[in-house]
Amino acid sequence: MTRVPPNDEDAKVQTALARIEQIKSQINLSSSPMSRQAPKDMARERAAADFNIEALAMLWAGGEKQYRLVQKAYGIIKDDPLLVVQAPRNFLELSKDEMREFTMGQIFRVIQFMKETEDKELAHEVGMATNVYSESFSMRFFVHDSLFRNVVNMLGNKEQQDRYNDDISNFRIFGCFAMTELGHSSALRDIETTATYDFATDEFIIDSPTITATKWWIGMSGQTATHTVVIAQTLVDKKNVGLNWFVVPLRSKYTGELEPGVQIGDIGAKVGHAGLDNGWIQFREKRIPRHDMLAKWVSLNRQGEFTPAPNPAVMYATLIPERLSLITGTTQIISQALAIATRYGVVRRQGNKNQQIMDYQSHYVKIVPAIAFMYMLKTAGVTMHEQFAVLTGDGKMDPVVYLNHMGDMHALSASLKGLAGWYATDILETCRRSCGGHAYSSYNAIGHIIGDWGVMTTGGGDNVVLLQQCARYLLYRLEQQLEYDQYPDLLFKSSGSYIKDAKRYLDNKTWGTNDAGDCLKDFTLIQEAMNTILVKRLYTIQQALKNGSTHNDVLLESVRVSELHCASFIFSVCAEKFGQQKGASKDIEPSVLAIMKKLTAVWGMHVLYTYGDQGFKEGYFTPEQINSIEKTYLELCKSLRMQVIGLTDGFGFPDFILKAPIARYDGDIYQPYLETLIASPGSTGVPAYHAKYIKPLTEQENPNVLKK
Amino acid sequence: MTRVPPNDEDAKVQTALARIEQIKSQINLSSSPMSRQAPKDMARERAAADFNIEALAMLWAGGEKQYRLVQKAYGIIKDDPLLVVQAPRNFLELSKDEMREFTMGQIFRVIQFMKETEDKELAHEVGMATNVYSESFSMRFFVHDSLFRNVVNMLGNKEQQDRYNDDISNFRIFGCFAMTELGHSSALRDIETTATYDFATDEFIIDSPTITATKWWIGMSGQTATHTVVIAQTLVDKKNVGLNWFVVPLRSKYTGELEPGVQIGDIGAKVGHAGLDNGWIQFREKRIPRHDMLAKWVSLNRQGEFTPAPNPAVMYATLIPERLSLITGTTQIISQALAIATRYGVVRRQGNKNQQIMDYQSHYVKIVPAIAFMYMLKTAGVTMHEQFAVLTGDGKMDPVVYLNHMGDMHALSASLKGLAGWYATDILETCRRSCGGHAYSSYNAIGHIIGDWGVMTTGGGDNVVLLQQCARYLLYRLEQQLEYDQYPDLLFKSSGSYIKDAKRYLDNKTWGTNDAGDCLKDFTLIQEAMNTILVKRLYTIQQALKNGSTHNDVLLESVRVSELHCASFIFSVCAEKFGQQKGASKDIEPSVLAIMKKLTAVWGMHVLYTYGDQGFKEGYFTPEQINSIEKTYLELCKSLRMQVIGLTDGFGFPDFILKAPIARYDGDIYQPYLETLIASPGSTGVPAYHAKYIKPLTEQENPNVLKK
Repeated sequence: MTRVPPNDEDAKVQTALARIEQIKSQINLSSSPMSRQAPKDMARERAAADFNIEALAMLWAGGEKQYRLVQKAYGIIKDDPLLVVQAPRNFLELSKDEMREFTMGQIFRVIQFMKETEDKELAHEVGMATNVYSESFSMRFFVHDSLFRNVVNMLGNKEQQDRYNDDISNFRIFGCFAMTELGHSSALRDIETTATYDFATDEFIIDSPTITATKWWIGMSGQTATHTVVIAQTLVDKKNVGLNWFVVPLRSKYTGELEPGVQIGDIGAKVGHAGLDNGWIQFREKRIPRHDMLAKWVSLNRQGEFTPAPNPAVMYATLIPERLSLITGTTQIISQALAIATRYGVVRRQGNKNQQIMDYQSHYVKIVPAIAFMYMLKTAGVTMHEQFAVLTGDGKMDPVVYLNHMGDMHALSASLKGLAGWYATDILETCRRSCGGHAYSSYNAIGHIIGDWGVMTTGGGDNVVLLQQCARYLLYRLEQQLEYDQYPDLLFKSSGSYIKDAKRYLDNKTWGTNDAGDCLKDFTLIQEAMNTILVKRLYTIQQALKNGSTHNDVLLESVRVSELHCASFIFSVCAEKFGQQKGASKDIEPSVLAIMKKLTAVWGMHVLYTYGDQGFKEGYFTPEQINSIEKTYLELCKSLRMQVIGLTDGFGFPDFILKAPIARYDGDIYQPYLETLIASPGSTGVPAYHAKYIKPLTEQENPNVLKK
Repeated sequence: MTRVPPNDEDAKVQTALARIEQIKSQINLSSSPMSRQAPKDMARERAAADFNIEALAMLWAGGEKQYRLVQKAYGIIKDDPLLVVQAPRNFLELSKDEMREFTMGQIFRVIQFMKETEDKELAHEVGMATNVYSESFSMRFFVHDSLFRNVVNMLGNKEQQDRYNDDISNFRIFGCFAMTELGHSSALRDIETTATYDFATDEFIIDSPTITATKWWIGMSGQTATHTVVIAQTLVDKKNVGLNWFVVPLRSKYTGELEPGVQIGDIGAKVGHAGLDNGWIQFREKRIPRHDMLAKWVSLNRQGEFTPAPNPAVMYATLIPERLSLITGTTQIISQALAIATRYGVVRRQGNKNQQIMDYQSHYVKIVPAIAFMYMLKTAGVTMHEQFAVLTGDGKMDPVVYLNHMGDMHALSASLKGLAGWYATDILETCRRSCGGHAYSSYNAIGHIIGDWGVMTTGGGDNVVLLQQCARYLLYRLEQQLEYDQYPDLLFKSSGSYIKDAKRYLDNKTWGTNDAGDCLKDFTLIQEAMNTILVKRLYTIQQALKNGSTHNDVLLESVRVSELHCASFIFSVCAEKFGQQKGASKDIEPSVLAIMKKLTAVWGMHVLYTYGDQGFKEGYFTPEQINSIEKTYLELCKSLRMQVIGLTDGFGFPDFILKAPIARYDGDIYQPYLETLIASPGSTGVPAYHAKYIKPLTEQENPNVLKK
């Protein structure tokens, strides 16, 4: 395969390496009891795993074949200077401009690999491994390869698909996704961009009529994209026929210069994703042919007759895969932070008894459930993707069934974004604090991960809005059930199916056990509690609405109920898969099945503990039960304390992916950490500004001393 | 006063400005209904304040004189290019190296101002205003001016103070504070750095014996400091006589080159405070004279006889002011994020009814208590500083009284760091989410604030450790009270004084009201609930310890009790000051007193709401009471919804301090925001890497098209 010639920077690298060696020769790298203990602790913890770590890693990767492929791909990218930043440079201190360029270089290289490699599965996995290495790459590639491509294919007709797909697949064009505007995000209805049909020329005129109509945050538009899909108010013969999507060229394929009628700027400095060129776009009466309005569901003929979509929901279905991609995102990113915090937590000793910091209750009670969540989410994610596939599988589904599925799927994916987005934020904060000050160093990656994650909780639909939408769906279903005994038959188990038994749950008085320890033997006790609390809370909200409360008055309660809805769905999927000795679990290696069952219990108890207040507000949990849930939860976390290294090893990340010297696989952290600092250009020596700002002050003689 | 000659960059600035004008001429800046509405909303909200905003701002600033001085200082720094980054450059996109230099330039300039200005109060305030503008400046200046200076003066004898103070005050030396090591932070006992007395030469040999002994994170050591204070194990005649502090020279005053026997590197890239040159230090048998061991409380004579401190606590007293500085830090930084999120929240409209986003319950129920916390903390902070002054006022306090005070002060300041540090983190996350995607842009400052804040929760002592120390103190007091009916007499109201009535609180069954609305009329109901829950929880923990639980088993519960301890203390101070019509409140303007009373109620209800589970678990709060607390809390927040602009205006920040275009005082946010992006260098045009990575892909012809 073609090797990209090394940059003309070999000499620079040699100089940098010589500088580093020179500094190392002057400093003290002697080991201490603490630094010698760290690798021993790591090895001991690893040996303490009571399951087959590699078998778990295979489950995590999606099977043995996939696991081998992933590891091979990591091996390939590791030494490729276009895919992975090579020492002594450090990925974590590239500037914004360097990241923008490096990330495009990664895209270039991955495409080259895809074109030149026979093994297409491996080529795909090289792209996936690069995703794991860099969120900026992941997002930038995703914008074209998923968002843009999905819109063209889900909303474009056959002719349009044929016209664009080959160029999309061969990266002769790069596409982006122009939805959000400076003044409008979650409320699509208020989008200002217009697409006005000009009958005379058979064209649409795409225009940004005001400053707040400026498309904003558009990933890959800042420096790269040759095309975009744009959502715009469609004006035909002075009538607004609604929002539609259009394909619009942005830049010359040859020069990168902007098309006439298009103004674009890079969005500039952001909290994360420095390698993604978000941009703003203004259309200044940009003309495109009529046939570039995406027309699978709608159409406009030469006579100006517009045919709307049979159901507006089809236009929004494109947003569901974006939300489901959050599952991949979470398990791909948050798991890295957890691996870092966990490894550091077992090699660092501190405190009166010089114990491992992971031994502190404040540590493992946060880390263990977070790790459990990764495995739960990965498992539930498979189910959700299967359900989505049913939905989109063939276009011949009965429209009513389709819409019922879509309603449940929308509610579930919306609540998933809220629950996973926010809990993941909490986990990252836990990871940050768990590393003490060392997460404050950029070189230990967690700060970078937190920066990247920022967009997940506010982009792609505000979490509060999404959770509220879920609650409204559930309230509607509850009303249908209680008033008309109606719940739709679906092709798969819907997330809201517990509502079918709403009457029974409403009749429940208090929880069926005073010893929450019973839950560990009988997961149905957990599920029963979750379902009961869900139905009771929904009913309370419903009654409040009937008694004059507005939706806004019950917003925070609605949000919490929706979180619980999703948390409970995840539990139900995992309890079914891992909670029994037969059925779905038979393909799973026994020691792995055993640990997954324990993690399922952790998740269940975590949810009861976290949403316990929802239960006691309903009079369902007594104080004794709350105390028992807490006790069981704390003990369960403690019982898994020694499994944390095995569990995070199961994620299968090599050191170069994690990037953090404090999270070395072998536990030998201190020297690599110090060496990382030394490698930073300009970290030693007198700063250039010394003469300007420091010397004029410090060189003054003390007049009192002179007088003496 | 001397004006620093403008940098030789005028031509560059002119070019940049011309570029910006050229882009502006090509884009659409037309207003929209949304952009026109924003300033109207802002004005309406401001007019809705039911108190005198300027009078509130004076209370916040510490009085009318102080308020005028602060505003004058803002006016002075605003146009000074060494103190405030001038357009078109943007403070929020300076690189690490630019920030390191700019921050030192600020220090240089502030010192120049202090030396050249007659009005010393104003000069001091210019420094304070620069603190508010930049946390990096604040920390870098603080390291020398407070940490270093305090150690010399609190631990050095008269001769040492005389020898260093004039140089410190005149900035002929810059000092730093070398405590933390790579392997050791919260556990000082394990510090590895040694100071070995060499009888032959009458010197100490300061040495870093291993890699983990490397001093780490030392602020100002990376590029600036000429001196440091160092804590080290003191070895005299092969005997370890304990930890002591030493003054050690690091760099030449003239050249900035390192002293022999000293190795230093800059700590490199961090999550925040890019302008602070944290560094690592290794001492390689660095020799210093015996008289540079700080010797107010300890001494070593020429014969090698060491006299230890009368009480080791005096050595740690230096850490209390650092914790109290967190009060200033919180009210200075978090209030900026709140001002930004609040202003954006009232000018942004979104959703079905196109309402202001601040109108959503999810918004104001988070923002209102956070604003209240700022005012509560500012108020309680005054009391805490007064108490600390009593403690350090004259050295003639009775030793027993001193230690009793120190115990309470330590517990309170430790719990304050935990409570304020963590709640502030939550507030910042609230602010971030409240701005939707726009907090993800670096240009709206919140990301920068979050980065800076990171160090507050992990630096200066781990919060979990500090909160646990507070809990241990309270448990000790409870035991003394219950077993021996003993509580010490103190010179000021101690934070733990409620423990005196422990028996009564333990006898309380359930809370005295089923309508939490009564609290608004009678703050003693709130205080009674807080005190009862505190004592009951402490007692439960105590019993668990007696029944075989370890301190680690009850760690999370201990942490929560300590948080509540601090939250309750803050409430008690503010309830006393603002809750009555007489007494302490008589100097306060009536409309301001009224709003402060309401904010006190918000804080009280916020604490009951947040720690309600602690009451429920004790059987003290019934489900009905929990629901009533929630209802009252939500309604109270709603009743203050229209006060948020007045309240955040009360912080008195000019726009250039906040830096965020979405938080403009006048509400006219959209054009300044877009212009900020345009001003970023390189934000438009074809990127340099186009030819390398994009063109080779996009310029390929589609073979299928050619075939046609």
